[in-house]
Amino acid sequence: MQYSDSILNTPSSFIRNILKVTDAADVISFAGGLPNPISFPIGQLKESVNHAIDESGAKVFQYSTTQGYLPLRQYIAEKHNKKQPGLDYTADDVLITTGSQQALELISKVLLNKGDGVIIEEPGYLGAIQAFTLREPTFHGVTLETEGINIAELKEALKKPNVKMVYTVPNFQNPTGLTYTQKRREEVYEAVKNEDIIFIEDDPYGELRFTGEHLPYIAAGKMENSVLLGSFSKTVAPGMRLGYMLTKNHEFLSHIETAKQASDLHTNIFAQYTLHHYLTNNAYEEHVEKIIALYKEQSDTMLAAMEKYFPPYVSYTKPEGGMFIWVTMPEGVNALEKFHEAMDQKVAFVPGNPFYTGKKEVNTMRLNYTNATPEIIEEGIKRLGEIL
Amino acid sequence: MQYSDSILNTPSSFIRNILKVTDAADVISFAGGLPNPISFPIGQLKESVNHAIDESGAKVFQYSTTQGYLPLRQYIAEKHNKKQPGLDYTADDVLITTGSQQALELISKVLLNKGDGVIIEEPGYLGAIQAFTLREPTFHGVTLETEGINIAELKEALKKPNVKMVYTVPNFQNPTGLTYTQKRREEVYEAVKNEDIIFIEDDPYGELRFTGEHLPYIAAGKMENSVLLGSFSKTVAPGMRLGYMLTKNHEFLSHIETAKQASDLHTNIFAQYTLHHYLTNNAYEEHVEKIIALYKEQSDTMLAAMEKYFPPYVSYTKPEGGMFIWVTMPEGVNALEKFHEAMDQKVAFVPGNPFYTGKKEVNTMRLNYTNATPEIIEEGIKRLGEIL
Repeated sequence: MQYSDSILNTPSSFIRNILKVTDAADVISFAGGLPNPISFPIGQLKESVNHAIDESGAKVFQYSTTQGYLPLRQYIAEKHNKKQPGLDYTADDVLITTGSQQALELISKVLLNKGDGVIIEEPGYLGAIQAFTLREPTFHGVTLETEGINIAELKEALKKPNVKMVYTVPNFQNPTGLTYTQKRREEVYEAVKNEDIIFIEDDPYGELRFTGEHLPYIAAGKMENSVLLGSFSKTVAPGMRLGYMLTKNHEFLSHIETAKQASDLHTNIFAQYTLHHYLTNNAYEEHVEKIIALYKEQSDTMLAAMEKYFPPYVSYTKPEGGMFIWVTMPEGVNALEKFHEAMDQKVAFVPGNPFYTGKKEVNTMRLNYTNATPEIIEEGIKRLGEIL
Repeated sequence: MQYSDSILNTPSSFIRNILKVTDAADVISFAGGLPNPISFPIGQLKESVNHAIDESGAKVFQYSTTQGYLPLRQYIAEKHNKKQPGLDYTADDVLITTGSQQALELISKVLLNKGDGVIIEEPGYLGAIQAFTLREPTFHGVTLETEGINIAELKEALKKPNVKMVYTVPNFQNPTGLTYTQKRREEVYEAVKNEDIIFIEDDPYGELRFTGEHLPYIAAGKMENSVLLGSFSKTVAPGMRLGYMLTKNHEFLSHIETAKQASDLHTNIFAQYTLHHYLTNNAYEEHVEKIIALYKEQSDTMLAAMEKYFPPYVSYTKPEGGMFIWVTMPEGVNALEKFHEAMDQKVAFVPGNPFYTGKKEVNTMRLNYTNATPEIIEEGIKRLGEIL
C-alpha cells in the first residue's frame, strides 16, 4: 500500500507516544498537558445535560448545523466583547469546532497548497505543527523570545513566497508558558496589518491568568483577516471537544464551513446544548477563579522547587498563567538523553524536540504542573535537579 | 486572500444549501436525509448519560485516547462478529470516528496524493465526494446498476494509474436505495481481491433492512485491505457524531490514528461513554426493529403513492431498507428544472446532480421517506406526480 506523502511526513504525536511510558503509576509525570480533573464541574454538567434533554428533547440528538448551535455562538461572541470592548463580535462571526485542534486543521485545508508558507513560533504548539504538516507547507520558524516573537525575523519571514498565515499563541504559550508583552503585540500588529495573510491568535489558556491584567489581542477586532481561536477544554471539560473560531472575514468562514461539512458535518450537538446550559446557569467566572487559584498554587510550588533544586546554569520561564514552564539547559545538553536519565529516576517531562520545525538537537524541555499535588511537584523537581 | 486549490474545488453541500429553502414550514420535503426523531431513544439515553457520569466521573470529561473508548470498540467488534460469523474482529481493529463522515475524510488524508485515482459508484454518496475532493483526486465513476456496480467498468477503472481505493455503499445506498446482490458482491470481490487498493464498504444503513436477509460483506473478513465503516447515527442518534472504522490492516489504521490526532485529537468521550452504556443496558435490537417497522411503513406508503400517481415512463428503485428512493425521469428531462417546478408546488426533493462526479445534466432525483407521515407522503407524491 502506498500512503499519501503528507501522512508519511506527519509526526504522530511525540507526546501521546511518550505518555505510554510516562503514565506508569510509579512515575512522577510533568509530561502531560491535561487539565486537573478536580477542576471539572461534574455535578453542574450533569444537571445541565438533564436540563438540555428535558427542554430540547430530540433536537439534542438530531443532525444539526455546521456552524454550530446559535445560542452558544451568541454566548461566545458576547463573552469576548465583554472581555475586550471594541471586539464587536456577533454570532455570525463564530463557528463551533470539534475542539480547537479541528480549527487548526480546517484553517490549513482552506489556506494551504503544498509548499505554501506558514509562519510559526519557534518553539511552537505541536498540535498546530501536526495539523499544518498534513498540507505539506514550508514552515518559517520565528524565534519566540521572553517578550513575544522576534520582530526582525517575523518581517523577514513575511517576505518569503506564498506565506498564507502567521500562527501565534500570545498568552501562556504551549510549550513555553510565555506571554507577549503589550509593546510586542503592537509591533507584531504593525508588521502584519497590511499583509495578505490570515493572522491566527490561538488562545486556549487566556482565561487562566494568575497575575497581571488581560492584554488586548494582537489583531482581533482590528484586522479583517484576524482569526481568534478559543476552547472550553481548559475551563470546563476537554472530553466534550468544544472549541471555536472567531473572525470577521466571512468569505474565509464560509470556506471553513465547507471544509467542516466535509470533515465531520457538525460538532456534537448534545455537548453544545449541555455546555450552553452550563455556561448560562452557573457562576462560570467563579469556577474559572477556582481553577486559577489551583494552578497558581501548583505553578508557585514548581517555581519555588526549581529555585531550590535546579543548578544556576539552568534557566526557565515564569508563567503569568496557563499550564506550562519551559526549561533551557546549557548549550550542548541533549534533552532527549536527559529524558531517558529522568525516566530512570521515575520522573518525566517532554523534551523540547517536537516543538521545533527546524532543529533536531535541542537543550530545552516542557514541564506541566497542573496534574500533581504540591508534594509530588516538590519531589519530582528535586529528582530532576539532581539529573541537571 | 488566496485560498487553497482544494477548498475552491470542493462543493459546499448542495443538500445543506437547498435545505435552507426546503425547510420552510409549508413545504413537503423529501429532500433531507434525517432519521425520524421519534426513533431516538431519548429517555434511555438520558438514563445512560446519568449512569455514565455517576460511574465514571471525571473520565467522562477528560482528554481521552485517539482510537476511542475500549469497551465501545469491543462492543462494536463483537456486534459485527455476531452478525456475520467469520469476521473475527477485535477491539484492536476498531477506531471510533466523529461520525462516519470523518472516517471518509481521514481515509482520504492517509491515501491520496493530488491526482490519485478514486473509484466510486455513479451516482455516489455526496459526503464521500466532498471528503475525497479535498485531496484533489481523479474520480473514476462506475455505473451503479440494480444489482450493484458494473463489473466491466470496475475492471477498466482498476487499470487506471495510481488508483488508491474503491468506495462502495453495498446496502440501501445513498442516494439510490439500491443493494448489491449476493452474486454481484462475489464478482466485485473477485475483481478487487488481488489489487493493491483499500476497499471501503460504507454501511450506515445496513441494520435497517425491511425485507430479505443480511448479505455477507464484499471484502470484510476476507481481504486485509478491507475497511468497513459504520455509524450509530441512523439507529441511535446522529447528533452525538459517533461512527467507526473496522480493518485488519493495522499499518493503515496507525496512519489513520495519526491523521485523527491532527484532526480533532479524539472523539467526544462523554458521548462514547453514554452510547456504550445505552447499548449494553437496553434492548438495542428491539429498538432497531421499531425503526425498521416505522421506515418500512413510510417506504411502502411512498412506493404505493408513486405507483398510483407517477406516469409510467418514470422509473424508481424499490429499497429493501434504508432511507431513500431514486427516481429516473425520461432522457432529456432536467432534474434541476423539475426541482424549481416542484418548489413552486411546495414539494421538495434532491435533484440527482450532486451525486455524480462526471455528469452535469441529469434526469434523476433522490426522495427521502423517513421524515413525513403517511398522509404527507401521499400528498407530496401526488403533487410530484402532477409535475412529472
